[in-house]
Amino acid sequence: MTAAQADGGDPRRVVVLAHEKFPDAAKTATGVLKYADYDVVAVLDRDKPGTVASDHRADLPDVPVVASMDDAPAADALLVGIAPIGGGFDESWRDDVRTAIERGCDIIAGLHYFLNDDEEFAALAAEHGVELNDVRKPHEDLSVAQGTAADVDADIVLTVGTDCSVGKMTVSLELLEAARERGVDAGFIPTGQTGIMISGWGNPVDRVVSDFTAGSVEEMILEVGDEYDVLFVEGQGSIVHPAYSAVTCGILHGAMPDAMVLCHVAGKEVIHGYESFDLPPIPEYVDLYESLAAPVHESSVVAGALNTADVDDDEAARDAVDAYADELGAPATDIVRFGADEILDAVLED
Amino acid sequence: MTAAQADGGDPRRVVVLAHEKFPDAAKTATGVLKYADYDVVAVLDRDKPGTVASDHRADLPDVPVVASMDDAPAADALLVGIAPIGGGFDESWRDDVRTAIERGCDIIAGLHYFLNDDEEFAALAAEHGVELNDVRKPHEDLSVAQGTAADVDADIVLTVGTDCSVGKMTVSLELLEAARERGVDAGFIPTGQTGIMISGWGNPVDRVVSDFTAGSVEEMILEVGDEYDVLFVEGQGSIVHPAYSAVTCGILHGAMPDAMVLCHVAGKEVIHGYESFDLPPIPEYVDLYESLAAPVHESSVVAGALNTADVDDDEAARDAVDAYADELGAPATDIVRFGADEILDAVLED
Repeated sequence: MTAAQADGGDPRRVVVLAHEKFPDAAKTATGVLKYADYDVVAVLDRDKPGTVASDHRADLPDVPVVASMDDAPAADALLVGIAPIGGGFDESWRDDVRTAIERGCDIIAGLHYFLNDDEEFAALAAEHGVELNDVRKPHEDLSVAQGTAADVDADIVLTVGTDCSVGKMTVSLELLEAARERGVDAGFIPTGQTGIMISGWGNPVDRVVSDFTAGSVEEMILEVGDEYDVLFVEGQGSIVHPAYSAVTCGILHGAMPDAMVLCHVAGKEVIHGYESFDLPPIPEYVDLYESLAAPVHESSVVAGALNTADVDDDEAARDAVDAYADELGAPATDIVRFGADEILDAVLED
Repeated sequence: MTAAQADGGDPRRVVVLAHEKFPDAAKTATGVLKYADYDVVAVLDRDKPGTVASDHRADLPDVPVVASMDDAPAADALLVGIAPIGGGFDESWRDDVRTAIERGCDIIAGLHYFLNDDEEFAALAAEHGVELNDVRKPHEDLSVAQGTAADVDADIVLTVGTDCSVGKMTVSLELLEAARERGVDAGFIPTGQTGIMISGWGNPVDRVVSDFTAGSVEEMILEVGDEYDVLFVEGQGSIVHPAYSAVTCGILHGAMPDAMVLCHVAGKEVIHGYESFDLPPIPEYVDLYESLAAPVHESSVVAGALNTADVDDDEAARDAVDAYADELGAPATDIVRFGADEILDAVLED
């Protein structure tokens, strides 16, 4: 059983909070709608009541959007599907969270602000016997890596990137689905709050004690790695990011991947939010990831995933993908636009 | 004023606890004796009362070793100078800590176990108006790096290593002293508990939230970087360590060094505690550190520091140093055995 299932084995009925941000600024909400095993019964967005999710984006299901928890159908949990800058709790959500608890819903949140530390919510949750699940709170028993992730039965495939927000989680989850469709016994290792919410378990690798970064990834791989033939590990950040490279490096060495998929956004030239830093050329990324991985575990960039969402027509997108494959010296595609086949072939062959 | 000075500007009188471990298994105690601005008035080691520190190691001062706090002279603080595996508090130290608090001493400790969380010590400290300084507890306002450490006036020199415990802190502190002897306005950026205890301030970079690894280094450099011409930054771990590379990578990108000194132990071939992992060849370390640094800030390995403590005679040590310099393609020496000149020349020329 996963955390996405209720005790009876049926998917849990979940309401997803995405006020004023749905869908394009609500990455967690759309990720949960697309990839989680939950039965999403409603999205909360006070700006868009009376619509359905698919009105806003064709790749989303026909889930109703309602203005508040008062208008939502029966559910087992309320999931906070937006993450404001800084990770705070927006007080305009308080009524909905209160109503959900009073209706007996668990609350699932990935904020830096822990709902368990909120006196009102903690008291109300105790009174109504529901759980406040702060997925970004690391558990107490994390430790340093032992260098043993490669010992599991599964092959490990890690998504790595040229920057943050280039699609590493999406690529991992699309590869997971595509592999399962081919009958491959594949699993997913989440490393960030959205991935954790989607899969219902996992360590928030960007929130653990720095010494335990690799260890927190290794722990997850050891826990499930013998149950699968392939594990897709969600990468974070970039190995040349001025702020987040530590997490990237810890995941690279903690996961001990057999293969890597390099994720990139077409046309991207500088690091998002750090615009004085140019992205190195693509072959330099390949060299860096491979040469840094090798002393701990030999690994190759076997394929590339290019996000061409900002490229209008398919022909231009195809040209961008071909150019990216040339730079990489490996197969590449836009997995959302053109499907996962090229990448999955490369990954499974490796 | 630094934390090593009492209010009047005189060095603080400190007793250093090192029960049963002094000197060779008490790295923090010996580091404090050699490098801190404290006036160390006694070392506690119940196995060696009646001796002086210099009886045990020639490079240590003539500080008396006593059996317990009852035998120690007047002091301003008791500093815990040993760090057991796991970072716990050894109950055999409780009497000494209690006595010290009752005598009005602050307690300085770098344990994972925070003295402020110990009910007896917290109550006693409040009663006697003394401070429990848990230097390994990160402060609350840490954040992500902005990529701005290179903007300070000082040149940044980072010690990097082939493994943990190869002398990065010692090399940084010896370079600091040697630079000051030459009249260079040099400062030190500590990143671990011993460095923090020696210098009396600093962020425990290995204990911060992983996303803030680089930011916690950058914060220190921005705080003091315009006051000095050169800053020696204490490195941690190794970029190819299965467990600790995340911290190494965060320090590398957070510090944005202008120059790096590669620290190594003569004859070392495998990673300590992870003996199935071979150390890569020295030139590979140079390539990795330089190529990983470059996209954030160009940096070169300008010199090497070789620890030859296990090499018996000076001639063999000199041969080892010469061979290391050849591998590096840069000047090298054993800074403890032969002095800092070669490395300092290379660092200051750069």
